[in-house]
Amino acid sequence: MWADDAKRMAELGITHVRIAEFAWSRMEPRPGEFVWEWLDEAIETLAAAGLKLVLGTPTASPPKWLIDAHPEVLPVRADGVRWNFGSRRHYDISSEIYRRECVRFVTAMAGRYGRHPSIVAWQTDNELGCHDTVPSYSPAALKRFQAWLQLRYESVNALNEVWGNVFWSMEYPSFDAIGLPNLTPTDANPIHLLDFRRFMSEEVGSFHREQIEVLRQHAPNADLLHNFMGFFTTFDHYRFAEDNAIDVAAWDSYPIARTESIALPEEQKARYARTAHPDVSAFDHDRYRTIGGGRFWVMEQQAGPVNWASWNPVPAKGMVRLWAYEAFAHGAELVSYFRWRQCPFAQEQMHSGLNLPNNELSPGGLEVQQAAREIAASAALSGLGAPKRAATAIVFDYETQWMFEIQRHGKTFDYQMLVFDYYEALRELGLDVDIVSSKADLSQYRLVVVPSIAVIDETLVGQIEKSSAQWVFGPRSGSKTTAFAIPSSLPPGALQKVLPMQVLEVETLRPTLTPALSFGDIEGVAMHWREHVRANGDTRVDAQFDDAWPAVLSRGKVLYVAAWLSHGLHRAVLAQAANEAGIETQLLADGLRIRRRGDLTFAFNFGEQQVEVPASVNATFVLGQRELATGDVCAWRDAQTD
Amino acid sequence: MWADDAKRMAELGITHVRIAEFAWSRMEPRPGEFVWEWLDEAIETLAAAGLKLVLGTPTASPPKWLIDAHPEVLPVRADGVRWNFGSRRHYDISSEIYRRECVRFVTAMAGRYGRHPSIVAWQTDNELGCHDTVPSYSPAALKRFQAWLQLRYESVNALNEVWGNVFWSMEYPSFDAIGLPNLTPTDANPIHLLDFRRFMSEEVGSFHREQIEVLRQHAPNADLLHNFMGFFTTFDHYRFAEDNAIDVAAWDSYPIARTESIALPEEQKARYARTAHPDVSAFDHDRYRTIGGGRFWVMEQQAGPVNWASWNPVPAKGMVRLWAYEAFAHGAELVSYFRWRQCPFAQEQMHSGLNLPNNELSPGGLEVQQAAREIAASAALSGLGAPKRAATAIVFDYETQWMFEIQRHGKTFDYQMLVFDYYEALRELGLDVDIVSSKADLSQYRLVVVPSIAVIDETLVGQIEKSSAQWVFGPRSGSKTTAFAIPSSLPPGALQKVLPMQVLEVETLRPTLTPALSFGDIEGVAMHWREHVRANGDTRVDAQFDDAWPAVLSRGKVLYVAAWLSHGLHRAVLAQAANEAGIETQLLADGLRIRRRGDLTFAFNFGEQQVEVPASVNATFVLGQRELATGDVCAWRDAQTD
Amino acid sequence: MWADDAKRMAELGITHVRIAEFAWSRMEPRPGEFVWEWLDEAIETLAAAGLKLVLGTPTASPPKWLIDAHPEVLPVRADGVRWNFGSRRHYDISSEIYRRECVRFVTAMAGRYGRHPSIVAWQTDNELGCHDTVPSYSPAALKRFQAWLQLRYESVNALNEVWGNVFWSMEYPSFDAIGLPNLTPTDANPIHLLDFRRFMSEEVGSFHREQIEVLRQHAPNADLLHNFMGFFTTFDHYRFAEDNAIDVAAWDSYPIARTESIALPEEQKARYARTAHPDVSAFDHDRYRTIGGGRFWVMEQQAGPVNWASWNPVPAKGMVRLWAYEAFAHGAELVSYFRWRQCPFAQEQMHSGLNLPNNELSPGGLEVQQAAREIAASAALSGLGAPKRAATAIVFDYETQWMFEIQRHGKTFDYQMLVFDYYEALRELGLDVDIVSSKADLSQYRLVVVPSIAVIDETLVGQIEKSSAQWVFGPRSGSKTTAFAIPSSLPPGALQKVLPMQVLEVETLRPTLTPALSFGDIEGVAMHWREHVRANGDTRVDAQFDDAWPAVLSRGKVLYVAAWLSHGLHRAVLAQAANEAGIETQLLADGLRIRRRGDLTFAFNFGEQQVEVPASVNATFVLGQRELATGDVCAWRDAQTD
Repeated sequence: MWADDAKRMAELGITHVRIAEFAWSRMEPRPGEFVWEWLDEAIETLAAAGLKLVLGTPTASPPKWLIDAHPEVLPVRADGVRWNFGSRRHYDISSEIYRRECVRFVTAMAGRYGRHPSIVAWQTDNELGCHDTVPSYSPAALKRFQAWLQLRYESVNALNEVWGNVFWSMEYPSFDAIGLPNLTPTDANPIHLLDFRRFMSEEVGSFHREQIEVLRQHAPNADLLHNFMGFFTTFDHYRFAEDNAIDVAAWDSYPIARTESIALPEEQKARYARTAHPDVSAFDHDRYRTIGGGRFWVMEQQAGPVNWASWNPVPAKGMVRLWAYEAFAHGAELVSYFRWRQCPFAQEQMHSGLNLPNNELSPGGLEVQQAAREIAASAALSGLGAPKRAATAIVFDYETQWMFEIQRHGKTFDYQMLVFDYYEALRELGLDVDIVSSKADLSQYRLVVVPSIAVIDETLVGQIEKSSAQWVFGPRSGSKTTAFAIPSSLPPGALQKVLPMQVLEVETLRPTLTPALSFGDIEGVAMHWREHVRANGDTRVDAQFDDAWPAVLSRGKVLYVAAWLSHGLHRAVLAQAANEAGIETQLLADGLRIRRRGDLTFAFNFGEQQVEVPASVNATFVLGQRELATGDVCAWRDAQTD
Repeated sequence: MWADDAKRMAELGITHVRIAEFAWSRMEPRPGEFVWEWLDEAIETLAAAGLKLVLGTPTASPPKWLIDAHPEVLPVRADGVRWNFGSRRHYDISSEIYRRECVRFVTAMAGRYGRHPSIVAWQTDNELGCHDTVPSYSPAALKRFQAWLQLRYESVNALNEVWGNVFWSMEYPSFDAIGLPNLTPTDANPIHLLDFRRFMSEEVGSFHREQIEVLRQHAPNADLLHNFMGFFTTFDHYRFAEDNAIDVAAWDSYPIARTESIALPEEQKARYARTAHPDVSAFDHDRYRTIGGGRFWVMEQQAGPVNWASWNPVPAKGMVRLWAYEAFAHGAELVSYFRWRQCPFAQEQMHSGLNLPNNELSPGGLEVQQAAREIAASAALSGLGAPKRAATAIVFDYETQWMFEIQRHGKTFDYQMLVFDYYEALRELGLDVDIVSSKADLSQYRLVVVPSIAVIDETLVGQIEKSSAQWVFGPRSGSKTTAFAIPSSLPPGALQKVLPMQVLEVETLRPTLTPALSFGDIEGVAMHWREHVRANGDTRVDAQFDDAWPAVLSRGKVLYVAAWLSHGLHRAVLAQAANEAGIETQLLADGLRIRRRGDLTFAFNFGEQQVEVPASVNATFVLGQRELATGDVCAWRDAQTD
Repeated sequence: MWADDAKRMAELGITHVRIAEFAWSRMEPRPGEFVWEWLDEAIETLAAAGLKLVLGTPTASPPKWLIDAHPEVLPVRADGVRWNFGSRRHYDISSEIYRRECVRFVTAMAGRYGRHPSIVAWQTDNELGCHDTVPSYSPAALKRFQAWLQLRYESVNALNEVWGNVFWSMEYPSFDAIGLPNLTPTDANPIHLLDFRRFMSEEVGSFHREQIEVLRQHAPNADLLHNFMGFFTTFDHYRFAEDNAIDVAAWDSYPIARTESIALPEEQKARYARTAHPDVSAFDHDRYRTIGGGRFWVMEQQAGPVNWASWNPVPAKGMVRLWAYEAFAHGAELVSYFRWRQCPFAQEQMHSGLNLPNNELSPGGLEVQQAAREIAASAALSGLGAPKRAATAIVFDYETQWMFEIQRHGKTFDYQMLVFDYYEALRELGLDVDIVSSKADLSQYRLVVVPSIAVIDETLVGQIEKSSAQWVFGPRSGSKTTAFAIPSSLPPGALQKVLPMQVLEVETLRPTLTPALSFGDIEGVAMHWREHVRANGDTRVDAQFDDAWPAVLSRGKVLYVAAWLSHGLHRAVLAQAANEAGIETQLLADGLRIRRRGDLTFAFNFGEQQVEVPASVNATFVLGQRELATGDVCAWRDAQTD
């Protein structure tokens, strides 16, 4: 079927095809015995149809002969049980045996295909860290963790000091004596847990980088990448991408299953069951675009119902097309679908593709075809440049995610969902957003929103001091040191230099406990988390709770929100901050989102009603029209005002 | 107390007594040292009172000395942990050591008692598969599983091909290399899981059959049986019963605890907390009657509150008597109670019996006494023949249960509950139902209801083609091949031969997502599961969803329901199909059920109101009367119409 | 900072300081190498400021070198997995190696500090049994359990007989053959589970006692104690305290986290989220006071938000002060706070203290300061005597807790919460309560309330017979023998001697199943548990359910409640019993509680409204006033009536 597939792919408007990412047992059916002929043929068939190729290294699925020879490469769960062969990702990312095997294999594969002119990109492994296989609690992980600690702390006394191991007699006599932080009768030391997560994040990076080094050598002209996941924080993607470890950030976008899986309120899951939450993909488009230094691909895009959420509905009519334009508007260079044809057997047989198992285009496939034809027919769309830097940045910080997972303090506190709530509010206000690292150069933004950041260091304070932007900080900002301790000056730590205030006490709130407040004419409550704060110096209290504790504090361009506020309040605070930053906001119709790319503005209607998009009177529509039906997309060029 | 017990049993109307089913440690207190005297005496005492005996082999409780000698016979959980001695069922059904020990013991026991004239039946083991001890994930199970696979597939390449192991590099180099499908980081291959369940189902059958072979030889005149459980699907009971492996299907009926335990809507659990759901016992009466080739016993009937559900209420007044008649009306040859006297110590001390621990009749015991006296006093009741084949069959399929457990796809999809919903609808319409295997000869039925069946093979299509019955198929029918793949022609696979249509996409529905539709004048929704279907050829769309997808399709006598519908819609579809089949239906009063046996119709009032039963005007009541109180039962002979 | 701390402590009104309870790794950094200098200095610094010291033995946190030398001292979970080092309580309480190490260490520590004049008390270990580390399912525990059983039963045949091991062939050939009751495929024998809990309770006691023996020798003048926990029933605290194993009962009081954690109705958790339930601390004050033979301390009192509940709110204003007075009113000799200063690092960094991490007094610290100053300024308060024996006793029984946990029978049955419901009702009626052991001399009480007691022995019946008090027994009383069997005379067993009645059947009630009844003019329902009871002899039925089963039965001064009743009914039954006992009751305002100590009555307002306290017209207020604000406390001396 390959030749026919290739022909139909090209006809559909597909330009790039990813293959081989799980095929180790076919490329090396027995140790050292490589069989390339079938892959040669596949590559030539696709190339002959004018398709470009992305080759995946198959290291997410070590073959059975490898496991039989080295059973110790199987990963170990937090409860000490070793996983079995029989699905995928059954390897310990810290296993030096497995790393050696991967380098050996990738060297052979890259040696054969690295310079093939049709192979324009390589993907390492597949969805690193998926299925909770990272961290692995193996002896191999322990050994490398001890070595990592030794490098970081140099002496065990220094480690004992930084970790505060005097507490509960946790002092270690040597690095060898340190264990993994699992299976402790009660909480392990949070810095022990954090350092283990830091270490594991680096393990993921170094595992990937070992393959990148081979690929750079053999495939010098290809884009090198890895396919990341949505809402996935097991490793620090900013650090992962450092030093040219990737050329483009690719990620796998499953908006409906993601909406079902994340900690959204039940009513939002109900409302958006068939459309996905309007921000759930955009959030990662805007995050991965900066991780890729401006370049991002969607490596796997949902084309219909999938198989892995608690429930898996069929997307509403039009959504597959809409998601394609949404990725495009956020700057995706490429939107690739998983999968070409629904595989009728094995684990993913209920995962739809562009084709049904009987090889006719699926409903989603037909929508992709439509979008591809529309873009090809439109010079305005097909020639569109990259998106510009946004005026607004949200800072996202992986270490903060880890710290607040380790120390949730209240069981409904979820840092990433707090960031998402801020992001949603900015998008409802019609803003484009870049999601960036706190280590990035933030000097070009006019509004910098930090929903929270556990550690505020002098570098960040320096950025604030030098910046002309408005800054908004959320609760728990500056509440920790890098050693996972409370700053001696109390939270928000070093932020006090620009915003004199102190957090005296904090509280987590059960769903029934909702301290009330107003901000301007918006009423609302605190949820999940609140702080009792003292304003120092000339810090102003902009809003306070009904019980008189300050809720919003500011000094000059820096503002602090001392609680997780209900959504309308977050939006009101951000609208005011944007306005003070000189950024125009507009509250979009319910379910509507817009995104600018080049000289076009795209609009997406996730709502249940037809709405009018906020185009200027003389706008030129290059796609769709001003009245936007539910599930539809349009794009326009606003009239030049001069 | 034995002589007094025997006398009181006989007085109560008891005819059969089951003993010895857990008494291994008393019959063989030390290896090879048999002590029969106490059992001889028990048997003679009961026989002297005119009682007939059912002897149980005690293999569900291997004694401690056996475990100490062979600790490897303990079963292993899915997480790899070995169970301990200290309760019951602590054996690995695949242990060849344990199987050898069982045959040795049963040979001795059957040799001694096999030809005793009062011992009219033997029960093997007790509730095979209970307490999740099957499957066992032991080395012994693995070895036998590998051998089973080798027999089934002959070559490992054939297995790799059928299993689709090319996916995720799961190919095995040899049968020895195949593992058990537990502890995989993500889903194991569904066919791997299915073959393991098929294998384990056969393990249960072969374990039983090893004892049957011994018993047939030593007890040639006794009925051989095993006591099955309600709503229990760990093994294929149709296959278990093949080739005379049992003479009668016996099962253990605990209607109230079952109602609390199964996935019924909460409001039904609340409503029927004291009466049990009106169909929960009938369902298994009608299933086990066909499994027993027409012969079934209730080996254990609930006589009062039990000990094992989440909550254990006292049955409403009258229910113990009602359940006795219900079993009788469905054709039970025997209703035996568990237990004679509440045991005041050990694990089941909170399980009621016919007698309180102080040996006075319990409230349930008094109701049993009443029923026994009523039947003895009525020639019409005591001389009643076996029930006739019903006009309506429901096909139940154990492999479908396993496949849809392995691939639930949405977390609320439960095949057996779908079958139960159809069964309930038919019973509300006043119909008698046989629950049958898809392999049975279905030619004599006028209405065949297949709530779902994963695999539709040519044999079943042949039955449809030759049949004059109306056929109703529910969703997911024909959605799989025997290799757990999607048919290449798309679902419903071979059914397309008689009903041209194709399932393009399927979706699982969170509770908030309920596509609406009408069937005739009944309005309702889809729940849990819906398909997007295309009618091909001359297939007619009888009902469609509000969003235009077909909901009910038919061609001639074959009808397909493309979703799990709300209950009223299932009933409307079945009422129409029954009417087309020439079967008269009548919507019974709320909570009322009827069942025909011989020339009598029995009625049971599970509702909260007194109701009038649907007897003909000139009907003769042999039990109770036309106005049926809550918790009461009546039976009548309808006037002959000529 | 030590000298400054000591000075500030003294200024705050602190008199006693507990130190060293987790500092093993600092006192003995390497095996046998003791370093006392730092502790010497700490002690001298505190003593120099006039502070008295409580020294804790650090055995709750064995250092890493000890674990490395003897990894088998780590405890084992019920699933067979061994816990790791890295937090605290990582020791197997049955490890003879660890016990030897503890005695060795405590001997050294007590030898050095036992006679120091400022060290007025010693605490063993810390919160024995916390974090589910008891029971440990280790080989060491098994060996000692077998020996314990041998002592208890002498012969294995006796054990088999008492345990009823004939059931399910569970007979053991020898004590060596008996295992731990974990990992059984279904329920282990309840008496097996119970004996294991009895054994483990004694293990906790003997572990403590080994240290006490050393301490008595070296610190003959100090109070010896252990810090118990709230609502904690892993061991029998009455037995633990026997034979002078403690001089004072100390416990750790965290009212808000406790309110969030226990099985209270959700609406109560919501209502009392910031104040704690009004009875949650009082309950344990009244329990530990009797355990301490009249002497109790609060060793750790919550001074602000803590870190370990599902959510951790800041206490409402005034509560920290209120809790101090509450402990005082219930007779606490000492209220110590955990902790002096919030520790900014390690596991408890989110646990507040009297000082913030930056060493300024926390909001709670300021309230403690206020209370200390008030008491110091008031002769009436500072000179107050111990509380008197109450007129009302509630019997609490640890074995009953274990038995009804082992055999919950319905998943919402919770013995301790039943006791708490009775306690709450008595307190709402304005009564002082002693919570006592059933083995205590009960002859001085006028009302004895036994919410339930599994085993009623002849001794207790003798107490009833000799007593002139009113007795109230709740459901399940007398339902078991010491061998965990149903009494042969049926429940309530020996109670029938004074109250002829029999429990025929029992039922557990799902939340939707609520049999209705009235008691006097109060209407309500049964919840969780109901019995079907027969009144025998001259026993009177005082109330019955709507379905005619007796609900309240009595004969003379003994009354039996045959169900878990809704709260208003419990209060009505108790009000009547109190009145019959000649105890005056008064239904307090919602959220108000009172407690008498010496000649003062204290009132505490946990409610949301200001209320008038029930002081006599001429009462003299020594604290606060008659109109009591929310969160406030007052105390008065009633005018002598003569």
